Amino acid sequence: MPKISHRGEVMPPSPIRKLVPFAEAAKKKGIKVYHLNIGQPDIETPKLVLDAVRHFDFKVLEYSHSAGNESYRRKLVKYYKKCGIDIDYKQIIITTGGSEAILFGFMSCLDAGDEVIIPEPFYANYNGFAVAADVVVKPITSSINTGFALPPIEEFEKAITPKTKAIVVCNPNNPTGYLYSKEEMETLKQIVLKHDLYLFADEAYREFCYEGTHTSAMHLTGVEKNVVLMDTISKRYSACGGRIGAFVTRNKELLDAAMKFAQARLSPPSFAQIAGEAAVDLPDNYFDATKEEYKKRRDLLVKRLNAIEGVFCPNPGGAFYAMAKLPIDDSDKFCQWLLESFSYKGETIMLAPATGFYGTPGLGKDEVRLAYVLNTDAIDKAMDCLAAALKQYPGKTN
Amino acid sequence: MPKISHRGEVMPPSPIRKLVPFAEAAKKKGIKVYHLNIGQPDIETPKLVLDAVRHFDFKVLEYSHSAGNESYRRKLVKYYKKCGIDIDYKQIIITTGGSEAILFGFMSCLDAGDEVIIPEPFYANYNGFAVAADVVVKPITSSINTGFALPPIEEFEKAITPKTKAIVVCNPNNPTGYLYSKEEMETLKQIVLKHDLYLFADEAYREFCYEGTHTSAMHLTGVEKNVVLMDTISKRYSACGGRIGAFVTRNKELLDAAMKFAQARLSPPSFAQIAGEAAVDLPDNYFDATKEEYKKRRDLLVKRLNAIEGVFCPNPGGAFYAMAKLPIDDSDKFCQWLLESFSYKGETIMLAPATGFYGTPGLGKDEVRLAYVLNTDAIDKAMDCLAAALKQYPGKTN
Repeated sequence: MPKISHRGEVMPPSPIRKLVPFAEAAKKKGIKVYHLNIGQPDIETPKLVLDAVRHFDFKVLEYSHSAGNESYRRKLVKYYKKCGIDIDYKQIIITTGGSEAILFGFMSCLDAGDEVIIPEPFYANYNGFAVAADVVVKPITSSINTGFALPPIEEFEKAITPKTKAIVVCNPNNPTGYLYSKEEMETLKQIVLKHDLYLFADEAYREFCYEGTHTSAMHLTGVEKNVVLMDTISKRYSACGGRIGAFVTRNKELLDAAMKFAQARLSPPSFAQIAGEAAVDLPDNYFDATKEEYKKRRDLLVKRLNAIEGVFCPNPGGAFYAMAKLPIDDSDKFCQWLLESFSYKGETIMLAPATGFYGTPGLGKDEVRLAYVLNTDAIDKAMDCLAAALKQYPGKTN
Repeated sequence: MPKISHRGEVMPPSPIRKLVPFAEAAKKKGIKVYHLNIGQPDIETPKLVLDAVRHFDFKVLEYSHSAGNESYRRKLVKYYKKCGIDIDYKQIIITTGGSEAILFGFMSCLDAGDEVIIPEPFYANYNGFAVAADVVVKPITSSINTGFALPPIEEFEKAITPKTKAIVVCNPNNPTGYLYSKEEMETLKQIVLKHDLYLFADEAYREFCYEGTHTSAMHLTGVEKNVVLMDTISKRYSACGGRIGAFVTRNKELLDAAMKFAQARLSPPSFAQIAGEAAVDLPDNYFDATKEEYKKRRDLLVKRLNAIEGVFCPNPGGAFYAMAKLPIDDSDKFCQWLLESFSYKGETIMLAPATGFYGTPGLGKDEVRLAYVLNTDAIDKAMDCLAAALKQYPGKTN
């Protein structure tokens, strides 16, 4: 029997999905599970967006341009303009989700063995794309004690080697919810300029900022050749299943390279490009209601968390995630125990152990990530569960 | 300015799309261009399939399961059963086009520097996925003189090294249209068993066989752990833009590895999964009309080609491609000349130079690929153009 590849072996399984069998077992026992573990928003996809797909009028479901429909790319220029980002439609490649934008970036900018620096905790799938591209992730640690602010410049400099080619910044951040300040973005600019690095900016949650405003990497001047925006419509419009994202850069040479990877896979999905194009026509105030809803949830969640003895949750400035420090021995064990051995009034809670978001082994053992993708009533009940659980959990440390 | 990666540099541009600017220039001059260069079928996507997408009823465009919707995978089991292929729905991972199935196969089975043997001429994008996966393609040459039959077993054995991990077979073949016989598939089975290799079977054109019947690699017994089916709905249902394919294998270990790559990119496109699922409900005779139409086109095309002095086109048994040997010095120059410097009654023809389908440099200079994706009237006129062109072309060799 032929062997699977080494990279097939070391490829990490999804840290979020590995608890799914335990959640299924809990449900089979009749226990209600509050899913705060994944970033699947419960907000309805805008009707205008879904209706656009319902009313498509072609007869042949053809390949689109490898860079995506020109009409969509031209519309996106308007969307980005509203975000203070001036680009030409030729600087956009429509991708199959933000995922493919990340892959194109890794493939086009880094060779096997090259290194990419990512502040940890970070979006776990960066690890997966790094394995696919045979690239080494060098984590530098941000701390819950500073609310996961950008680590000091010295930490970056210590991590940089001749093989370092890029820094990834996710802003607002998944999993921490941290919103990087203008000053922090300027710091990143100085580092990438000094060391001639790419700055990969994952801005999936751009619209969801509750404290202060968003500074896009594309706002930075003088780093036009360094910055790559890896974008997606998934969270913005509650359109995760569409699998539509964008790879955006003002670096022509890089764009040409990424375009060859885009041509090899022929085209991004046609139906969801219609959805993405329609979404640009949403009224400017569309995000107000969604943002208000998320803010309300965040405020409740953070308040409830910090009211539990031994729990600390810094107030996240954006996205729809919060990280909390819990008085527990091991977040993987705890999250499994919540599903396997615990219930409170017939209910329990599913959380993401933070260990999967750290590149440094051993970190995140007393932290969990909570996605506030449920309504406030559900969040309240989920917090009741958590409070009760922390009284009973055999591995509690306080 | 940071450099692009080496693989970004060596990544091949699409050999088919590079002539597009010349076609656009010809059209601007008012010349009608018959597109026989790409595999975009003109056949309408079945209404039942498009209507299913129009009538979706969800309110949140959610991620699907990373392996695709269970309902779709269960239906595909029925489709495959009709093809004489017995599998379980858990042996299927729905992919973003056949493209992603190829990438998952390369990533899960081969490491950087490993080798994959592919009979040439072959689908040009295998090269692209090989570069992405840092894998070496070892071509073994099939000849137009034998109609592109499988090269003799000795040629495979000569090409096999300790780094060889897989053989790719595209059946029926793109670009040659060759339909592999049961005996040839059995030969491949012997080779992969003897050398413990994977057999990657790209069967995108399974339904389009005009001479004899299709032998799937999944029909072979005793190679259950070796065979990976890389499938797509693109050509079958004229649904190229959906970007829905499938990675199918009975090798559990491999399936688990590929699943991790699937999890990293979250899920395949949701809308087109609805299309794919609906397509399984098409009546059994759905392919009859399409096949009859393609056969009529093929018969006309092959007859017209072979009637031109100095042209040889073996009769392709399947798919919707034909390769022709022309009395020309250089197929790249000729195809460009057709668009740049030639017209006949205000019309010309766009072909794919065969050079892009060979891995061995220098091969394919007197061959072109023709996709019979136009109706017979258009094919007739396109052949009038080609006959006239071969009288005038300055680089003709007879």
